[in-house]
Amino acid sequence: MSSLYAKVAVLGCGLIGSSVLRAAKDAGLAEAYVAYDASEAVRARVRDLGLADTVAETATDAVAGADLVLIATPPASIGPLAGKIADHLAVGATLTDVGSAKQVIAEAFEAAAPAHVFSIPGHPVAGTEQSGPDAGFSTLFRDRFTLLCPQERSDAPYLAAVEKLSAFWSGMGAKVETMDARHHDLVLAVTSHLPHLIAYNIVGTAADLEQVTESEVMKFSAGGFRDFTRIAASDPVMWRDVFLLNKDAVLEILGRFTEDLQALSRAIRWGEADKLEALFTRTRAIRLGIVAAGQESPEPNFGRNRKP
Amino acid sequence: MSSLYAKVAVLGCGLIGSSVLRAAKDAGLAEAYVAYDASEAVRARVRDLGLADTVAETATDAVAGADLVLIATPPASIGPLAGKIADHLAVGATLTDVGSAKQVIAEAFEAAAPAHVFSIPGHPVAGTEQSGPDAGFSTLFRDRFTLLCPQERSDAPYLAAVEKLSAFWSGMGAKVETMDARHHDLVLAVTSHLPHLIAYNIVGTAADLEQVTESEVMKFSAGGFRDFTRIAASDPVMWRDVFLLNKDAVLEILGRFTEDLQALSRAIRWGEADKLEALFTRTRAIRLGIVAAGQESPEPNFGRNRKP
Repeated sequence: MSSLYAKVAVLGCGLIGSSVLRAAKDAGLAEAYVAYDASEAVRARVRDLGLADTVAETATDAVAGADLVLIATPPASIGPLAGKIADHLAVGATLTDVGSAKQVIAEAFEAAAPAHVFSIPGHPVAGTEQSGPDAGFSTLFRDRFTLLCPQERSDAPYLAAVEKLSAFWSGMGAKVETMDARHHDLVLAVTSHLPHLIAYNIVGTAADLEQVTESEVMKFSAGGFRDFTRIAASDPVMWRDVFLLNKDAVLEILGRFTEDLQALSRAIRWGEADKLEALFTRTRAIRLGIVAAGQESPEPNFGRNRKP
Repeated sequence: MSSLYAKVAVLGCGLIGSSVLRAAKDAGLAEAYVAYDASEAVRARVRDLGLADTVAETATDAVAGADLVLIATPPASIGPLAGKIADHLAVGATLTDVGSAKQVIAEAFEAAAPAHVFSIPGHPVAGTEQSGPDAGFSTLFRDRFTLLCPQERSDAPYLAAVEKLSAFWSGMGAKVETMDARHHDLVLAVTSHLPHLIAYNIVGTAADLEQVTESEVMKFSAGGFRDFTRIAASDPVMWRDVFLLNKDAVLEILGRFTEDLQALSRAIRWGEADKLEALFTRTRAIRLGIVAAGQESPEPNFGRNRKP
């Protein structure tokens, strides 16, 4: 593919940022790459791995002259970092990010970005439970969705910038969709944030039991618990930020989940076999719908792309 | 391996029962196999698949002359079925099962089994979300735990029967441990029953949302939700029975889980970033412990054995 951008600056070189650098370079999507990370150790590692043409010492240095600036730092720092670099962004540059909560970041971008910059919040729905520049790989985004949440603007230059950013993600193998930021946050609260919260919680509950040892929990975890431990091994700082930034949607969905769980608990207590079987039959049908829609083979596969 | 039993009767030929028939035959653990299932269609299928030497038309016919009787029907029917076959069990026969709740079944076995029968409740911690005789495969139990919950008896013939049943499961590749039935139920409530309950619940909650369509939930499920849909696709009848039979332990663990979840919800509402990060860091360490203990590769693997 021919280059879409002259110079891409990636701020934050963890799992996602380093995967963008690898994937974009593999696909030839830009002429040059600049990387920045707040951690000196990470910057050194990015240099060693040869992930970028230049590793900048500051975020403002990194974005100078870049026509695409992609922020891939922990979600809570995305807004503040946008504010910090705002005055250094090139005319006509596109400012985007990869955070899992979009409404708060969309607001921060609109507040920070000068008029001559196209701000387009984004979110690749992809990841593993690994972190850091070594964990990234170039096929992380392949056949995964990337959601862009453009501003409500219909001027041609902005639409062209959205089109180009969309081509950038497609070039890395992603399926791109656009979505309202608030709706994004609700959808992700269900499909990602609540599952992570639940997984963190159940692993914590298990670890606190007096009557069952941790070694027993580990040994017999094949019965279902093991999937939760993997989800609950995801990056702690990132997830802390996600829950705080997407607080409203997460609490809304969590409230419904808790209500439903109380009803289920009551059905168990009162031996309401029919109610239990009806729910379990319905949820099985949902899974079969996912499999039938061709989104997953009936054999275990598990959504996340694997590091080759 | 030389034969351990002359005649093994398997009652119930779903995922587990049919896998036992396949695995035991592959390993040459018995001289003859009799199968029975309450469903005529399943019996016909077992005949077509050639899973047993004889397919009996009644449970009492099946157990006649068998020195091992293994009940693999839905958990709630195990106790009643034991009562039905009790008078037809051969002298010196071993009576076992594969149900995921053990205390209730242990009590039913002790009440039903005549003195000349060795009753040894059992539970292979293995499975997939598939059901039925076609879903079984001979490597299902390989490197998975099978838990036996023997009675509190120390007479030599009983201990020998436990030893032999243990060798039967080892012969199918399982790692065998013995455990008190009540403790089994608590351990499994944490490692298996609660995870399944939570998965069923979250998939149900998601399906009920008005603002997010089912197709959106499916499309973006790679963010964590997908693992839950797989768990929530497990056999509805079996799981209905598990929750009802292991009610006390499940409600106890569910109560703790709910308390912890409320604390977590409160931490999100009040923006207690440190609390969130501390929990998430701790749960990640637990996962690393599982990986370090060599029970799982750091790459996704997911506990359950796969059908080849």
